[in-house]
Amino acid sequence: MPELAGYGEDRLVAALLDRLPRGVIAGHEIIAGAGDDCAVLRVGGEGAPLQLLKTDCVLEGVHYTAQTPPLKVGWKALCRPLSDIAAMGGRPLHALVTLALPGTATLDYARAIYDGLGTAAERFGVRIVGGETARSPSGGFLSVVLTGEVDARHAATRSGGRVGDAIYVTGTLGGSLTTGRHLDFVPRLEEARWLVSRFPVSAMMDLSDGLGRDMPRLARASGVSYVIERPHIPCTSGSSIDDALQDGEDYELLFTIHPASHDALERDWLDRWPDLKLTRVGTLSPLSKDEGDPSVGGYDHFAPCR
Amino acid sequence: MPELAGYGEDRLVAALLDRLPRGVIAGHEIIAGAGDDCAVLRVGGEGAPLQLLKTDCVLEGVHYTAQTPPLKVGWKALCRPLSDIAAMGGRPLHALVTLALPGTATLDYARAIYDGLGTAAERFGVRIVGGETARSPSGGFLSVVLTGEVDARHAATRSGGRVGDAIYVTGTLGGSLTTGRHLDFVPRLEEARWLVSRFPVSAMMDLSDGLGRDMPRLARASGVSYVIERPHIPCTSGSSIDDALQDGEDYELLFTIHPASHDALERDWLDRWPDLKLTRVGTLSPLSKDEGDPSVGGYDHFAPCR
Repeated sequence: MPELAGYGEDRLVAALLDRLPRGVIAGHEIIAGAGDDCAVLRVGGEGAPLQLLKTDCVLEGVHYTAQTPPLKVGWKALCRPLSDIAAMGGRPLHALVTLALPGTATLDYARAIYDGLGTAAERFGVRIVGGETARSPSGGFLSVVLTGEVDARHAATRSGGRVGDAIYVTGTLGGSLTTGRHLDFVPRLEEARWLVSRFPVSAMMDLSDGLGRDMPRLARASGVSYVIERPHIPCTSGSSIDDALQDGEDYELLFTIHPASHDALERDWLDRWPDLKLTRVGTLSPLSKDEGDPSVGGYDHFAPCR
Repeated sequence: MPELAGYGEDRLVAALLDRLPRGVIAGHEIIAGAGDDCAVLRVGGEGAPLQLLKTDCVLEGVHYTAQTPPLKVGWKALCRPLSDIAAMGGRPLHALVTLALPGTATLDYARAIYDGLGTAAERFGVRIVGGETARSPSGGFLSVVLTGEVDARHAATRSGGRVGDAIYVTGTLGGSLTTGRHLDFVPRLEEARWLVSRFPVSAMMDLSDGLGRDMPRLARASGVSYVIERPHIPCTSGSSIDDALQDGEDYELLFTIHPASHDALERDWLDRWPDLKLTRVGTLSPLSKDEGDPSVGGYDHFAPCR
């Protein structure tokens, strides 16, 4: 009987989702479900914004340590799902928070986590409308549910990429865990909304597990392959190209766009976001069976240790 | 510096929520937030159903054990938040599932959990539209996000109870943990929707922590006190009245209704739900400062061990 440790997360999720009832609730179309950054649901009528729904969890010992300042734990816990809302071109609305701590944790520790959550909520216009606390038998964890909305004509998913589209990434990649950026990154909400409202972005996602693992996901969802120009990958100072591919937790945007738009995009971007790098790293290409996978792997929750 | 173990969950949640930004997102009224069974949000226009949002988590070692059949773990994980949607008189829509298991867990174990989730989803018309898996450093846990909707004129919260209203509970209370009912209970979705569409239910919640702890919550939210006739409390066979007050995990409905409706309610209930007991257990009464709290406590995640 196979153990989960031998399974990749993507394969595991696919094996599990296979067991669920299919079909749609009358009047409630599922635009994007499992496998995209957020679920995208039509719950209002035609013309109403689409509903976005995301849950994300940070675990002590995996996403932070007992030594991480609790303010940063709270910030990170809310900013991770905010980055997924950004990936759809969406606007965040409401959040629920589940905080589980060992019984030995102090009230000041819990309060500082909430201060971190509150700071992020304030900055990005989110209202935290509920949640629960629980005693954790071992390390702590924080789970955040986030809703959002996006205009139907602007919603970006992973699946719209077409052969020939240019592949872009924002910012620089690699080193997030060693520099501590994974604890205080700024989700690209503003940039993403600007993008989808001005340019025909064909597919988008956020980079949480490293370009080497996330790029194949976007390509698979779009039914295409891709060529990444390794030397073009924008590396964080001190990081190698392999680090940029593998480290993960960059929380930058990865998106594709028709090549006809790329000059206008690069010019307007520089004008509007002069402090945030935008780099064309490759092109979507046709699927071919004997083509090797240029990715070298990122962080996979159920992958064997490397 | 106080440790969390000395704090009750209610007090802790209040201390934490105090730190969050207040106010409402334009056009997105918060009808009920932290402190009710679900968040109740107006995200559509006037006349559109209200959005319900709930997250709930089951932890190995707290809500189930390593020996619990995984099918039942999945069932319970979805049915707990379904019981909260029921408490608002709502209809469930979509769910996201986070499954964290130790790396030594088997694929069959994970699949059986999903079979339990899928069985409950099928039965109650829920679509699971995403989620994630993670490796847990110790015991497993399952976190479920559930959305739902309810007609604005039928939404039941904890805060509408008025002095003189009759207090009712469905089913029998106590013994859920010893009989195993906490693993295979049926959330009272149908009964609750029937209730709110036919009777002026003034306040409602589901009984998860025991009548002794949940009744004071409903009364506090409604700004009233209450008198419970202990001998009237419907006990599960083999359970004492103290068990019925304290055991928790009953997942029955606790609701209040104007006394003018109680004859019609009792008659129609018997007709429509002949197999589910409905019991009047007391009356909402005026607040008085020197009145003792008749509750004897239920399970509180941060209460000291008794």
